[in-house]
Amino acid sequence: MEYSLRYFLADAGVSWLSGLLANVGSTLQETTSATTPDKTALFTAHNVWMMICTGLVFMMHLGFACVEAGFTQAKNTVNILFKNTLTPIIGLLTYALMGFSLMYPGFKGGGEGFEWIGFGGLGLSAPENGMTPEYAASGGYTYWTDFLFQGMFAATCATIVSGAVAERIKITAYLLFTFFYVGFVYPIIGSWKWGLGFLDDLGFYDFAGSTLVHSVGGWGALAGVLIIGPRLGKYVDGKVIDKPGSSVPLATIGVFLLWFGWFGFNGGSVLSADPAATSLAITTTSLAASAGGIGGWIMGAIMFKRYDFGMVLNGILAGLVGITAGADQMGVFDAVIIGLISGGLVVLSAITMDKLKLDDPVGAVSVHLTCGIFGTLAVGLFGKKAGLEQFLDQLTGVLVAGVAAFSSAFLIFTILKYTIGVRVSAEHETEGLDSHEHGIRGYTIVYDE
Amino acid sequence: MEYSLRYFLADAGVSWLSGLLANVGSTLQETTSATTPDKTALFTAHNVWMMICTGLVFMMHLGFACVEAGFTQAKNTVNILFKNTLTPIIGLLTYALMGFSLMYPGFKGGGEGFEWIGFGGLGLSAPENGMTPEYAASGGYTYWTDFLFQGMFAATCATIVSGAVAERIKITAYLLFTFFYVGFVYPIIGSWKWGLGFLDDLGFYDFAGSTLVHSVGGWGALAGVLIIGPRLGKYVDGKVIDKPGSSVPLATIGVFLLWFGWFGFNGGSVLSADPAATSLAITTTSLAASAGGIGGWIMGAIMFKRYDFGMVLNGILAGLVGITAGADQMGVFDAVIIGLISGGLVVLSAITMDKLKLDDPVGAVSVHLTCGIFGTLAVGLFGKKAGLEQFLDQLTGVLVAGVAAFSSAFLIFTILKYTIGVRVSAEHETEGLDSHEHGIRGYTIVYDE
Amino acid sequence: MEYSLRYFLADAGVSWLSGLLANVGSTLQETTSATTPDKTALFTAHNVWMMICTGLVFMMHLGFACVEAGFTQAKNTVNILFKNTLTPIIGLLTYALMGFSLMYPGFKGGGEGFEWIGFGGLGLSAPENGMTPEYAASGGYTYWTDFLFQGMFAATCATIVSGAVAERIKITAYLLFTFFYVGFVYPIIGSWKWGLGFLDDLGFYDFAGSTLVHSVGGWGALAGVLIIGPRLGKYVDGKVIDKPGSSVPLATIGVFLLWFGWFGFNGGSVLSADPAATSLAITTTSLAASAGGIGGWIMGAIMFKRYDFGMVLNGILAGLVGITAGADQMGVFDAVIIGLISGGLVVLSAITMDKLKLDDPVGAVSVHLTCGIFGTLAVGLFGKKAGLEQFLDQLTGVLVAGVAAFSSAFLIFTILKYTIGVRVSAEHETEGLDSHEHGIRGYTIVYDE
Repeated sequence: MEYSLRYFLADAGVSWLSGLLANVGSTLQETTSATTPDKTALFTAHNVWMMICTGLVFMMHLGFACVEAGFTQAKNTVNILFKNTLTPIIGLLTYALMGFSLMYPGFKGGGEGFEWIGFGGLGLSAPENGMTPEYAASGGYTYWTDFLFQGMFAATCATIVSGAVAERIKITAYLLFTFFYVGFVYPIIGSWKWGLGFLDDLGFYDFAGSTLVHSVGGWGALAGVLIIGPRLGKYVDGKVIDKPGSSVPLATIGVFLLWFGWFGFNGGSVLSADPAATSLAITTTSLAASAGGIGGWIMGAIMFKRYDFGMVLNGILAGLVGITAGADQMGVFDAVIIGLISGGLVVLSAITMDKLKLDDPVGAVSVHLTCGIFGTLAVGLFGKKAGLEQFLDQLTGVLVAGVAAFSSAFLIFTILKYTIGVRVSAEHETEGLDSHEHGIRGYTIVYDE
Repeated sequence: MEYSLRYFLADAGVSWLSGLLANVGSTLQETTSATTPDKTALFTAHNVWMMICTGLVFMMHLGFACVEAGFTQAKNTVNILFKNTLTPIIGLLTYALMGFSLMYPGFKGGGEGFEWIGFGGLGLSAPENGMTPEYAASGGYTYWTDFLFQGMFAATCATIVSGAVAERIKITAYLLFTFFYVGFVYPIIGSWKWGLGFLDDLGFYDFAGSTLVHSVGGWGALAGVLIIGPRLGKYVDGKVIDKPGSSVPLATIGVFLLWFGWFGFNGGSVLSADPAATSLAITTTSLAASAGGIGGWIMGAIMFKRYDFGMVLNGILAGLVGITAGADQMGVFDAVIIGLISGGLVVLSAITMDKLKLDDPVGAVSVHLTCGIFGTLAVGLFGKKAGLEQFLDQLTGVLVAGVAAFSSAFLIFTILKYTIGVRVSAEHETEGLDSHEHGIRGYTIVYDE
Repeated sequence: MEYSLRYFLADAGVSWLSGLLANVGSTLQETTSATTPDKTALFTAHNVWMMICTGLVFMMHLGFACVEAGFTQAKNTVNILFKNTLTPIIGLLTYALMGFSLMYPGFKGGGEGFEWIGFGGLGLSAPENGMTPEYAASGGYTYWTDFLFQGMFAATCATIVSGAVAERIKITAYLLFTFFYVGFVYPIIGSWKWGLGFLDDLGFYDFAGSTLVHSVGGWGALAGVLIIGPRLGKYVDGKVIDKPGSSVPLATIGVFLLWFGWFGFNGGSVLSADPAATSLAITTTSLAASAGGIGGWIMGAIMFKRYDFGMVLNGILAGLVGITAGADQMGVFDAVIIGLISGGLVVLSAITMDKLKLDDPVGAVSVHLTCGIFGTLAVGLFGKKAGLEQFLDQLTGVLVAGVAAFSSAFLIFTILKYTIGVRVSAEHETEGLDSHEHGIRGYTIVYDE
């Protein structure tokens, strides 16, 4: 592929800019000895499935946006949506610039003998047809499909943080955090397993990311909650004050979209359209989501003496997170049990968070961290890999990723706190972020009593 | 697949629980003589399409949730969403436990000579790769894909009932009804045709379920409306009092999602990705939906002297339901005519319902029962199968399924009425179900005049 | 396929109606010498992808509906949704009746030697299996898939106009405009390139329609804005008065759905599932969308001194429109640059429109016309086709399509103005179109202060 802006500028005599672009461009085209693209039917079918899964994971970003905007106060709706819209944007661009290359260094020539950190170079480097020799050998899909699928995945990690720190974080602090977390922390931790680093050698298993995506996001969320502190007026005289979300329908749309997106998150993690593996993965995923909803419903009824709909919704998400580490390993019955436990756990975790005065407006830590850990350990308890040895491998992975993610996030938030600041003023928080930071309101709706 | 929780518990000496699980587990793994999975390109492409259709049918549940929450009063929004979220959850779990096995007994070894009722055993039973000899022979997709696609289908049937009884049914009564209707009534009636029972021998044709899904749901809705009675203040002094829905945008999102989902509902009912059959089915489906919108618009303008948007939306759904029995059989022109008639019918049906003081807040009976019957009969009037003989076969199917569904639903609701009760108190109904049963409100939105 | 209503009526002795239908029917079935359908795996995989893309483009109609309803005032919400729901309906039916046949006359036997206008006959004409000899030869997908994909595309063109004239156009005028624009203007202009007419011979390139869809829609929008005039109270004493939209979450849902739909819009424009071409197209598309959001954010911050979320959302759409003409031609770096520029341009264009007192409530002209033109020219500046000659070819295409689209739209709106009128009364506009034209309100939501 010619990067012709360069040639255009050179023709026009703008040589310094043309020279600069040549440097950037070189990371983009490198492999000019393109392998012939595989146009066989099986390759095409695999690639179609992976592109669909990419689109589905993209929809998870809308799902997160809706869940978070629905569960938080109407005066901060635009701010939440701003953050959640910028997250996949910054995520994708950052992942293109360096994340992809940090996460899969082996595929990009920088990972021979790689253990802790490898790097395949800035930017994306593939021939136009997306067929490097590595992709041709793997036979599943093109370089472009791989990048876009993994890039959509990467951005979900930061989105998890977004909900936990909502309604009081400075938007610039959040955006910078996202840049560093998606650009460095997530891909490096991910490379330890999925990039074939030391956690992979160890026997740790994480099919689609209960730990590598959800716990990593959850640890970031927990660090954020600790450093930024609770919303004003959340914990008063030992009481937890309810802050009603703007729209339950919006949150419901979000949860359904996330379930829908998880067809791609788990179904796509097969990395091919293999009929047996993909169909088993979406089946265990949907059954765990269903059981998670039941678990959240029952535990919510026990703890709150009412049919708490928020707990049903978070129970579904809990079931989805819980099954993710072993969606390809579980039987029907295992999936239901994992979902049920996750759904119950999320309620207990949310109550515990409030007891500890850790204010997480949407329950992100309870859903993604608590159930991410449980789901990862569940691979050692249920399914094909169950056994004490596997359980200990899983525990190791949970701890290693946890220490790395939490300490990184804590460090980034601390630096931000003492430089640009991480929290808006009390006045802005009370009056709402929308009118102060964005100049518009989320809803302008005439109503009848 | 090993169901290893069992082994884990056995190791740990928890023998009684391990023994119990062994019993349940046995229904899940039975066929250990796994057939080699078909990994050919054609099989893979078929299976990809069927998994996509499964996801699309799943999205119909969000569609129903949005339509129903949009068309009902804001004070009951959370209650509606609770019901519509639990419906696919209970539906999927129930279908896994027994529905799938009741509906397709022949595929599961229990249906030799089956006429009225067959049963393939509790739970799901397939090797991990989802390739029983039957699936390998059919060559279209795996056992897991089949289960999940049919399970998503099954739950739509109960969702139809949900809208009709909204704003006054006791939530526990609804959830129990869903359990029995999806677990027993829907799969048994469905087995008469799709499980190759007596209605199939008879020549009755129902491509994707105008009768087996939509009318069956519609008869359940009608039984519910009759037993539960109209909302307080709906029919006063011979007048029909309007009860405005909470959000027209929400209802609109719902209808578009249902149309989108119908690509999978009808396109997936081909049970393969056969290019000619699937593309014809989605084309007739979309044209009938379009014509249905026109029919609802025109008939609404005639009857109400205004551009009634609710009738456009219900007209689209009517067209979708109407084409469903013969989406694979119709020409372009037939599809348009069927859509137009369905769209007109739904308006007349809704007016008739109100004349009879049958209160159906979202028009579920008019959309799914009236147009389900019409669509089924239309197979005898239009398309490849048209003719008097086919028409009579269709009429037989409509009557048989109608008697079975209505009487079953009537029985279930009656039993519920005289045991736990089916209707909330007048006080709760007046003040809204959300604050009383769920402790939160659907919307908490600041507004500007 | 038998069009059996005809035979049914003939049997029943209704001969005049049967005769009429025979005439219509003849355009629908013509080719009875059906080519054997291609059931090979590669053909099936291609067709699956194209059907998915069709569904995705359909979802863009929901995206447009949400964006427009979200960005306009709550008193006109039902009216907007009515228009946006009728648009794909009228679009699909019109495209079936004549649009498809005008746009691709060569495929339908009417285009030998075609230069400016060709016509393949009223209605759709294909054998039931959708395999005319032409489709069998092209090897990519069936006639039905082609029609439905192109029909969904066609209707997006009119939807663009909808937003620009919102809140004051007479609904009947809009619907008639849609009929003529989708039925004649769009397909004839489109045929000049995609139907292999004179613009194609010339070397003009437009991969997925920056010009042929978006600019054509944008020119129609501009003509509408000019003829209908600004909303009452928009420009007062030299000031631009803000008219807040009803719901930012709704607009956000719309933008994400449009991005999601663009996977099908650009990915499907490959007209097969070719792995390299489709995966590159969705990658450049997503990167341009991301960069567009950044461009809109930055330029919005510069111009308005705040984090203007509307400009982020319109920036994303701008990036999508900008990349559309060359999504298959660009490198990663080109895509990012094109997105960034488009996102900046849309802000400047919106400001300019307001300076000129051209009232476009949702920014449709700025997104689709301004960035459609830029994106088309960008094919001559970036990517594989860059060069002066290509740039001039692109400019020619922009001008030819622009003159044709704008003058046609201007003519249609002018005729409508002097016949049925194009604008509602000042009273209706002030009080809102919903209560006057539709008799209901968009939102009936109880709220807490």
